[in-house]
Amino acid sequence: MAEPPLLDSIHSIEDFKRIDRKDLPRLAAEIRSFLVEKVSHTGGHLASNLGVVELTIALHRAFDSPQDKIIFDVGHQAYVHKIITGRAAEFERLRQMDGISGFPKRTESPHDAFGTGHASTSISAALGILRAERMLGGTGSVVALVGDGALTGGLCFEALNDAGQSKQPLIVVLNDNDMSISHNVGALNRSLSRMRTSRSYRRFKHNTAEFLRKLPKVGARMFGDALRLKNRIKYFLIPNVLFEEIGFTYLGPVDGHDIDTLIEVFARAKQLESPVIIHAVTQKGKGYAHAEQNPEKFHGIGKFDRDTGKVNGSAQESNSSVFSRTLCSLARTDSRIVAITAAMPQGTGLDRFCSEFPDRFFDVGIAEAHAVTMAAGMASAGARPVVAIYSTFLQRAYDQILHDVCLQSLPVVFAIDRAGLVGEDGETHQGVYDIAFLRMMPGITVLSPSSQEELAEMLRLALMSNGPVAIRYNRGALPSHPITQPVQIGKWEELLPLFQSKVVLIASGRLVKNALEACAGLPAALINARSIKPMDDALLLHVAAHGMPVITLEDGVIAGGFGEAVQAKIGHVVEVIACGVGEAPVRHGPIAEQDALCGLNTEGIRKTILELLERMR
Amino acid sequence: MAEPPLLDSIHSIEDFKRIDRKDLPRLAAEIRSFLVEKVSHTGGHLASNLGVVELTIALHRAFDSPQDKIIFDVGHQAYVHKIITGRAAEFERLRQMDGISGFPKRTESPHDAFGTGHASTSISAALGILRAERMLGGTGSVVALVGDGALTGGLCFEALNDAGQSKQPLIVVLNDNDMSISHNVGALNRSLSRMRTSRSYRRFKHNTAEFLRKLPKVGARMFGDALRLKNRIKYFLIPNVLFEEIGFTYLGPVDGHDIDTLIEVFARAKQLESPVIIHAVTQKGKGYAHAEQNPEKFHGIGKFDRDTGKVNGSAQESNSSVFSRTLCSLARTDSRIVAITAAMPQGTGLDRFCSEFPDRFFDVGIAEAHAVTMAAGMASAGARPVVAIYSTFLQRAYDQILHDVCLQSLPVVFAIDRAGLVGEDGETHQGVYDIAFLRMMPGITVLSPSSQEELAEMLRLALMSNGPVAIRYNRGALPSHPITQPVQIGKWEELLPLFQSKVVLIASGRLVKNALEACAGLPAALINARSIKPMDDALLLHVAAHGMPVITLEDGVIAGGFGEAVQAKIGHVVEVIACGVGEAPVRHGPIAEQDALCGLNTEGIRKTILELLERMR
Repeated sequence: MAEPPLLDSIHSIEDFKRIDRKDLPRLAAEIRSFLVEKVSHTGGHLASNLGVVELTIALHRAFDSPQDKIIFDVGHQAYVHKIITGRAAEFERLRQMDGISGFPKRTESPHDAFGTGHASTSISAALGILRAERMLGGTGSVVALVGDGALTGGLCFEALNDAGQSKQPLIVVLNDNDMSISHNVGALNRSLSRMRTSRSYRRFKHNTAEFLRKLPKVGARMFGDALRLKNRIKYFLIPNVLFEEIGFTYLGPVDGHDIDTLIEVFARAKQLESPVIIHAVTQKGKGYAHAEQNPEKFHGIGKFDRDTGKVNGSAQESNSSVFSRTLCSLARTDSRIVAITAAMPQGTGLDRFCSEFPDRFFDVGIAEAHAVTMAAGMASAGARPVVAIYSTFLQRAYDQILHDVCLQSLPVVFAIDRAGLVGEDGETHQGVYDIAFLRMMPGITVLSPSSQEELAEMLRLALMSNGPVAIRYNRGALPSHPITQPVQIGKWEELLPLFQSKVVLIASGRLVKNALEACAGLPAALINARSIKPMDDALLLHVAAHGMPVITLEDGVIAGGFGEAVQAKIGHVVEVIACGVGEAPVRHGPIAEQDALCGLNTEGIRKTILELLERMR
Repeated sequence: MAEPPLLDSIHSIEDFKRIDRKDLPRLAAEIRSFLVEKVSHTGGHLASNLGVVELTIALHRAFDSPQDKIIFDVGHQAYVHKIITGRAAEFERLRQMDGISGFPKRTESPHDAFGTGHASTSISAALGILRAERMLGGTGSVVALVGDGALTGGLCFEALNDAGQSKQPLIVVLNDNDMSISHNVGALNRSLSRMRTSRSYRRFKHNTAEFLRKLPKVGARMFGDALRLKNRIKYFLIPNVLFEEIGFTYLGPVDGHDIDTLIEVFARAKQLESPVIIHAVTQKGKGYAHAEQNPEKFHGIGKFDRDTGKVNGSAQESNSSVFSRTLCSLARTDSRIVAITAAMPQGTGLDRFCSEFPDRFFDVGIAEAHAVTMAAGMASAGARPVVAIYSTFLQRAYDQILHDVCLQSLPVVFAIDRAGLVGEDGETHQGVYDIAFLRMMPGITVLSPSSQEELAEMLRLALMSNGPVAIRYNRGALPSHPITQPVQIGKWEELLPLFQSKVVLIASGRLVKNALEACAGLPAALINARSIKPMDDALLLHVAAHGMPVITLEDGVIAGGFGEAVQAKIGHVVEVIACGVGEAPVRHGPIAEQDALCGLNTEGIRKTILELLERMR
């Protein structure tokens, strides 16, 4: 008779701790199977979680959460942590609006010590927690689990630099799978790679378990002294000058799938009274053949067929693909065009550009700030850089856009993908701030297409501009239909005529479609606000002259956004109702539900129109 | 008879090139004298420029600007460069509104290859320029001159990581003076320090000149091969694993005040076809005893007496000092309070806090992003962190404030110094975006004091809040007078009564004083908008009910700012005229002149009121 699954017994961290150590590999296998099963139904981050099953098990064995704090960098690899801390049953509703988040959330569990979503924050946060705890009398350990991809972010370096001098016993676990989301880039990664592939590591991988077994099991006397411990272990390890040079004790590389070794190494790291980095080598997607073979595809994925690994893809071409296809076409006739991504060649669609123009394609790693300042440098020297970054990650480069690009009026094109509500990734990934944060910047043009044809045309226009231009477009696919009125910077399109209407909707981007549907049969005009900045002042004044109330619709926050710009321009003449995302961050869930929550779906917009018409009667 | 000064002969880079090499040390001495003389009259950045006299001379000898590009990180050390490239005569009007900028500006000279102001951008920009030039057929060298302080910024690391793998012949000159603005911190600096102080360097310093003299002067044959060159030189150099590990050839340390040696090393670096870093050791303030002894004071300084080094200081206590004094007082009774600075202990006034509470003070280096995320970590663990950062530099942490602090509603206090127009540092340093970029963030409170007493009280209130609070205050000194109406979050103060007025001014921060003066004798009410977010909705609706037009006044950009928030709230009921900083960046010059330019001085405000009253007649 088969034993009941160990996983079924875990309803809390205490249950997990009761599992016999020798059974942990079996638990790991169960968790892998569970992850593939659940994520195939809900979608989510799969490959990264399959890679950290043993690491997470070992962390929760060696440390006592929530007294000890474990900070997951990025956080998309926290599924195993959620399972172990008693949330397995909730994976049915993973990333759904009434379910658990795909990222750590302080509000979700005391074991989620610090909320994450964007990369490279964990070491800073962990150092802060450690310093505060020590100051306030706490003695717990603080661990940051960070991927080698996230390590290319400058924030990690700033934190390592501070931690290294702090002498605080911070524990950094480097989860090195030679991947960020796409394959890693950067000199640091080459350095890590040399360690991974060295003979000493391969020897170590085979010998460590035995080595550790042979060591006397006396903690305090034998291992208490940090230096002696290191001197013992380092015969099997490769001294890493990079980390040692900035004040960290380096332990590694260790096999990130060997639970026993990991537990031993963590236990020893815990005894050090100074910063330590543990270099664990893992395989992204491990244990699920489809994910092992294509970890980028299985990084963040929709529902898929467990057996074939096939995703129920959309038939329509994505906006990202339209962008990249158009860029390739333009680049064929303009040799000054270059493309820059921050570790997202596939997500932004630029993998296509990379194939066709490898010498004009630059993947700088998870380093949005550098991507933008480097683009400014390129533009200053006569190139035509296009920087493709998701809206939420572009937040990382706010100052670089303002200080390096806009203050110098340099012709950098920002292709802002995943602008607006993004769905299941939730609060930390909503691309709802870009209109507001770009609108204040001097001289930048901000465009938002309502169709894929407009997107293509805007890219062409942007590359002819003498100053910075941002094009924001949503996740997924905009409608596809021919352009009837030419796209121009500073010009809008009157889709439903002002004549004989009682209200005017001014919508941008993907919301134009919702607005069009909402207006059906109502005395409402509709304007497609293609150019968010500069606005179409002539048309706006024309609207104001009509005297009708205005409803603005934007896939972004209201505060500081497009609607307020319209209010500032004509709000003293006619009433302007600004619709968009409110103050409260919008929770994870399908975009359609998020739209409904914000009143931005067809029904919500129609309701706003009807209420306004009712008031006007 | 004394020879005429060499400096008098320099009206262009060509003039400089004509000076005999043996006379360059004399030129250096003249430039030092010139700098001290000029800056004592205009104010400006002195110590950093005194430190790079020989470095800049050598750079312009070894490289051919503008074909070769020299990028000055931060840019406050570009005075010598400006002199050499023919701008000496314009130092009379340095940092004045009609004069040259204190920073490189592309619009000012073709020799200013890339505009800078904020730290750590140079390597990214230089790499971008180099990549673009090579792609477009250029062959010039590109050099980034970066201080060891700026090197603590994550952006530098992101760029080094990318440059190291790029194999591009980027030349990075590390100007290592062991200072950023204050003394440097961080593990990296300790590593640099070890190199600086090693015996090999000291031996090298004495022997290099002779060594280089003895080497055969045949460039191509002898030094063309990068590896051979390095193998020769490195006997005298300390191999630097840190930079070598990420793909840079390391040359150094070299004496940054030895022109001949520098020229030789630069010439050799130019021949390398791969990334190279030259570690030059300099002394900040060199050659002017007062600056050597107190480089932080002479970093950015107002007019001073050349002989005594004394500054004509203001009699009144600065806002920074009020902030720090108050924080110290609060910290005495609340042991959870900690203070964080990003390399600005003196500028923010926190040096006082550091003296009193060294264990609760954290200087993280030029690393604003890390400062904020670390603060979020501390707050999550029960501490009460206060992060003091200049408004313009806080732009670097936009995403960290939003993603790490606000999305988690963590009680971090932001003390935003130098908010609003800052004067002579100009466009790159204007603190005019913070209202707009903070207002869109969920759950943050934004306060702005109109007096030093309000500043102190707001800090007390902020530290009692359960969520994030930002307090923005201007450079210099706010008025000092007792608080008559209690300061409360979300409440404003009616300074001049609505009753019997015809217009209402709603002003914040230092502009309250200007507004009060402007209202003298006019039928104008005045409200002190202490709480920018949340606003005083009750009072606003009360104002709207009065039916009078409103003038809002803010020391920040209008787009997305406070005035637009007021327009959004009551703009459909009464006319709201939003006054503040417009789209065009405000040029360097005295704050009073910048105020006048924006219509924010007493006369400008009075004019706006009078025009409005005229229109209403």
